[in-house]
Amino acid sequence: MESIGVALFGLGRIGKIHLKNVLLNKRLTLLWIVDESEDNVKAELEHYGGQKEIQIAATRQIENVLADDRVSAVVICTPTDTHADLTIQSIKAGKHVMCEKPMSESNEKVAECYDTSEQCGKILFDAFNRKFDKSYRSMYDKVRSGEVGEVQFIRSTFRDTPLWRGAETFTQTFLCHDIDICCWFAGELPDSVVCVATAHDEKIKQAGDVDSCVVTMKFPNGAIGVMDFARYSCYGYDIRLEVFGTRGMLKMEPALESTVNEYRLTGKQESPFCASFPQRFQDAYIAELDHFIDAIQGKVEIYVGREVCERIGIVLDAIKQSYKTGTVVKITSNKQ
Amino acid sequence: MESIGVALFGLGRIGKIHLKNVLLNKRLTLLWIVDESEDNVKAELEHYGGQKEIQIAATRQIENVLADDRVSAVVICTPTDTHADLTIQSIKAGKHVMCEKPMSESNEKVAECYDTSEQCGKILFDAFNRKFDKSYRSMYDKVRSGEVGEVQFIRSTFRDTPLWRGAETFTQTFLCHDIDICCWFAGELPDSVVCVATAHDEKIKQAGDVDSCVVTMKFPNGAIGVMDFARYSCYGYDIRLEVFGTRGMLKMEPALESTVNEYRLTGKQESPFCASFPQRFQDAYIAELDHFIDAIQGKVEIYVGREVCERIGIVLDAIKQSYKTGTVVKITSNKQ
Amino acid sequence: MESIGVALFGLGRIGKIHLKNVLLNKRLTLLWIVDESEDNVKAELEHYGGQKEIQIAATRQIENVLADDRVSAVVICTPTDTHADLTIQSIKAGKHVMCEKPMSESNEKVAECYDTSEQCGKILFDAFNRKFDKSYRSMYDKVRSGEVGEVQFIRSTFRDTPLWRGAETFTQTFLCHDIDICCWFAGELPDSVVCVATAHDEKIKQAGDVDSCVVTMKFPNGAIGVMDFARYSCYGYDIRLEVFGTRGMLKMEPALESTVNEYRLTGKQESPFCASFPQRFQDAYIAELDHFIDAIQGKVEIYVGREVCERIGIVLDAIKQSYKTGTVVKITSNKQ
Amino acid sequence: MESIGVALFGLGRIGKIHLKNVLLNKRLTLLWIVDESEDNVKAELEHYGGQKEIQIAATRQIENVLADDRVSAVVICTPTDTHADLTIQSIKAGKHVMCEKPMSESNEKVAECYDTSEQCGKILFDAFNRKFDKSYRSMYDKVRSGEVGEVQFIRSTFRDTPLWRGAETFTQTFLCHDIDICCWFAGELPDSVVCVATAHDEKIKQAGDVDSCVVTMKFPNGAIGVMDFARYSCYGYDIRLEVFGTRGMLKMEPALESTVNEYRLTGKQESPFCASFPQRFQDAYIAELDHFIDAIQGKVEIYVGREVCERIGIVLDAIKQSYKTGTVVKITSNKQ
Repeated sequence: MESIGVALFGLGRIGKIHLKNVLLNKRLTLLWIVDESEDNVKAELEHYGGQKEIQIAATRQIENVLADDRVSAVVICTPTDTHADLTIQSIKAGKHVMCEKPMSESNEKVAECYDTSEQCGKILFDAFNRKFDKSYRSMYDKVRSGEVGEVQFIRSTFRDTPLWRGAETFTQTFLCHDIDICCWFAGELPDSVVCVATAHDEKIKQAGDVDSCVVTMKFPNGAIGVMDFARYSCYGYDIRLEVFGTRGMLKMEPALESTVNEYRLTGKQESPFCASFPQRFQDAYIAELDHFIDAIQGKVEIYVGREVCERIGIVLDAIKQSYKTGTVVKITSNKQ
Repeated sequence: MESIGVALFGLGRIGKIHLKNVLLNKRLTLLWIVDESEDNVKAELEHYGGQKEIQIAATRQIENVLADDRVSAVVICTPTDTHADLTIQSIKAGKHVMCEKPMSESNEKVAECYDTSEQCGKILFDAFNRKFDKSYRSMYDKVRSGEVGEVQFIRSTFRDTPLWRGAETFTQTFLCHDIDICCWFAGELPDSVVCVATAHDEKIKQAGDVDSCVVTMKFPNGAIGVMDFARYSCYGYDIRLEVFGTRGMLKMEPALESTVNEYRLTGKQESPFCASFPQRFQDAYIAELDHFIDAIQGKVEIYVGREVCERIGIVLDAIKQSYKTGTVVKITSNKQ
Repeated sequence: MESIGVALFGLGRIGKIHLKNVLLNKRLTLLWIVDESEDNVKAELEHYGGQKEIQIAATRQIENVLADDRVSAVVICTPTDTHADLTIQSIKAGKHVMCEKPMSESNEKVAECYDTSEQCGKILFDAFNRKFDKSYRSMYDKVRSGEVGEVQFIRSTFRDTPLWRGAETFTQTFLCHDIDICCWFAGELPDSVVCVATAHDEKIKQAGDVDSCVVTMKFPNGAIGVMDFARYSCYGYDIRLEVFGTRGMLKMEPALESTVNEYRLTGKQESPFCASFPQRFQDAYIAELDHFIDAIQGKVEIYVGREVCERIGIVLDAIKQSYKTGTVVKITSNKQ
Repeated sequence: MESIGVALFGLGRIGKIHLKNVLLNKRLTLLWIVDESEDNVKAELEHYGGQKEIQIAATRQIENVLADDRVSAVVICTPTDTHADLTIQSIKAGKHVMCEKPMSESNEKVAECYDTSEQCGKILFDAFNRKFDKSYRSMYDKVRSGEVGEVQFIRSTFRDTPLWRGAETFTQTFLCHDIDICCWFAGELPDSVVCVATAHDEKIKQAGDVDSCVVTMKFPNGAIGVMDFARYSCYGYDIRLEVFGTRGMLKMEPALESTVNEYRLTGKQESPFCASFPQRFQDAYIAELDHFIDAIQGKVEIYVGREVCERIGIVLDAIKQSYKTGTVVKITSNKQ
């Protein structure tokens, strides 16, 4: 098959991950990188031998990029508040879109993105990378095949590092993964949520945001889900998942840098955790890109579709409301 | 020093554990066992060579036991709803009392027990065994010495086995340990709690009780505590504790039967968990009995005293209220 | 049953362990302690409240002890080169004997001990404590019940701490346990051994001894056994066993002080290893004493008998010869 | 830089691994595949979309391949007994060579290969993949930086799966990795070796070969090395390394498929081991290929050079001699 022409929008933390994977993927040809800083782009491309044939554009020149017929697909890695508009604009220009999560803080905007995708017949893929991680996937497959029996309890732990103070609100950027995972494993939308949250970091507190929270969700099928989140873990990037059922329990532990253990008088010491998301989800980022390509080539249906994104949006709204009001919030949705 | 004469009240699950430890303790002489079933007592004593010199009494004959001047101390292992009255009666008869937890569902009754203890100058020891477990203790010592920095998050997991349907209410018998642990590590009473609970077991549901719950507590110092509880774990007795702070995390994992691992094509398999509380807390039950004796002999102060029990009572009441009303419940206590 | 009167010979490292277990055992009454230093004995007994009714004797007064008809059993914890003579003398005086391993460096002496035991009808129990450790036992039971299929490989690792320079020769005191374990699991005597050894410690080297060795044994049934040994491990008391077969592998890992793990940026750190043999084999020492009592009371046959001790002696001789000559040594024994 | 033209010789188990990595590497262009079976090659290339521009040749047509000026480098994955001649022929034709290990069973042949490489000024890289595995490398770096102090003991365990009966002799194909690792960590050639070996598999026994062995090596610096090897492990691909020193111990455990653990009544079960060498060393194969390219491009010196290969050859000869004669074999080499 022919190589697919790609434009990459945004070259920040996550954009640099996708840059590498696009460059190394033999089914793709990177044609454009859109970023405000041409220096930033050039410096990054130096790691890959310069790549002078790739064109660089500023955000205001985005129409030139979308007018390039060689570009079939767009990968959006810009700040969250620009995701939805860029997505809609790109799809309308006839491009397939892979967009970093979350697509938007507004459920209406998300719906508009998917409406546009359906009207234009273009792929829209919200890149929930954990769905493409082999540990999450194997755990999901075990649960679905009944290895833990009836699911009674789901716990998703997420402690981030390094500390990132730049998020819009804690829920949007951080919790969407865990909500996605809990609902995926529960197989449905919760019917109530309650969020207990606090800010330890002085700057985050002053910005009116929080850095630590526990969200409890009750699902119609009886399962209880708990998400505990911390913006900063001093001992490493700590992502865990636990699913408890009538026939057993499954637990996903943090991935480690190596299998080398040190033995001291203080005890056995394992290797450090994978440093952060670029290391932990290295393979998942490659896999999700391949999934996007497979979808473009008509080989698969998009695994993370409209319903998933809408479900996350509903739960996020309920969590925000619980956080603001300090109450348990019921969810009643026609979507279910 | 002279041997201390002991009477044991109740020879059920927990009574049998204390029976063994009292018999093996060289500082104690067991004089009486009080139990409704003389056959039960005799069958149990057969394991220890008959022990014919120990006298057996039914509950209605308890006054004879308390009238025996050789008896200095009483160990109460009867059903929970009898704890408080037996405690008060024993103390008034001039005996030191070690009472299984919880002392009473009523905070007033608990206060009355301690008032009586103080008035009569007799030891009253509510046997919170986890406080005497070396893993909990070493973890507590590490936290207090600052090894995790400022505590931000405490998680206590308790999944019981075998399934016991006999509890009065889930909170009373099961959660008191976890509440004790969370408040011990937080160093204070929470200022709000919220309980999300459900019943999976049909019989428990019909009895109007629950078998699974998640309780989230917010502490004045900013720490968040989560207790997740299940009445029945098919894979073994699962007790864990996790304390996360600004400088690190500590985790207590379930104790295993041995250090022997099996390797199969399915992967490495560790030894089973310790079967249940008699195995898991075998050493802690011996240590708490020794602590009780040390207190009687004037060597130590009681480690788990009035304030601890009252604190647990306050939190239990708030949890029950949260469970009934489905709301977040504030705690305002003069005790703090 | 009546309490059994006991005399304890030797109150060094291992003697103090047996002292505690004898004192706490309700089936035994300790009547005599034989030790060169009365001060040592008195200081130790202070830990147990003085125990003034226990008589103290020096080694030269041993005949008085053996003449005491109340003494039915003797526990021998003196230096290795005195084991055999004290054993024979005690048995001839009509006492049952539990003797610390090894009974003697001379196979003839060992035979004489057992001959005496058989002639006098008294129990002789060579206290190989590992046989009474639940991890070794459960592993042995699994192997015998076929859980690893045909045994092809056995590895016994032993790294001691703290450093003890006082042994007669490395093989005698240290390797006898590992030889015992390997032959127990193989189910037979090896037909060849080769020992590669060295001394890292300057004092041990000057004394003509070694501190590190690897011994490989080939068994008639095809299994290969490897023992690796170090006199000093800086990171703790490291005892492991690995049995590999056609259907799986079993591995016994070092026991840990607790189940509490610490998480730092350097990785997860488990609790320290059990400090040394008194901690690691605490339960095994209690169990072997109970086994000795059960044998005296006619309830069981001695688990570690004449054949086991003779087998160990034969292998030890071959290892010493291999070490001296630097060659592979064949074992041809009528015993098989 | 320009892409490097490559020819791949041999498309068996290991050839298929290199095929994938060559195809995915943007610095290489695969021009030729040499294999006896054109069908085999075509079937394999189907996985990569056909790749019709790659030319296929039989071994007898190798001169055509070597005559192709576009080919700068050759990757040799043919049977071991053809390695040396193909290497020499390719170098003489002006190609850089990456050759699967071992280069030859004959030390003279290995020397001839390196002589040719030096005379022709072409890179010769014997592909010892473990040297490019991050776990081995991080462990080596720790040892060299003194984290375990003076090295006293090195253990390399290798249990293969699936069972491969096709090797020339067990030593050549299997042990060369472990010898390499042990000498790498010891930093020198051993001065004596002894090999205890046996055959459990009936077919291997009839072929006069063995499937299980333990090799002990003594190094001049006092360290002892042990390699234990089994041709078939029923529970998975088991590769471990342990380095014990005066200041600590390092252990490399087998890599696992995922970090998901299952909890059953039988205990916690980890994920299966990585299936075999293609999975376990997936990243190492990519890294060694990049190392070869870096060397061709003059960026690095070859990490595994002449001395390493000659050292392995000397030890292999000594092991074979020990196995045949049943004795301890001294090594005296001018090379040291």
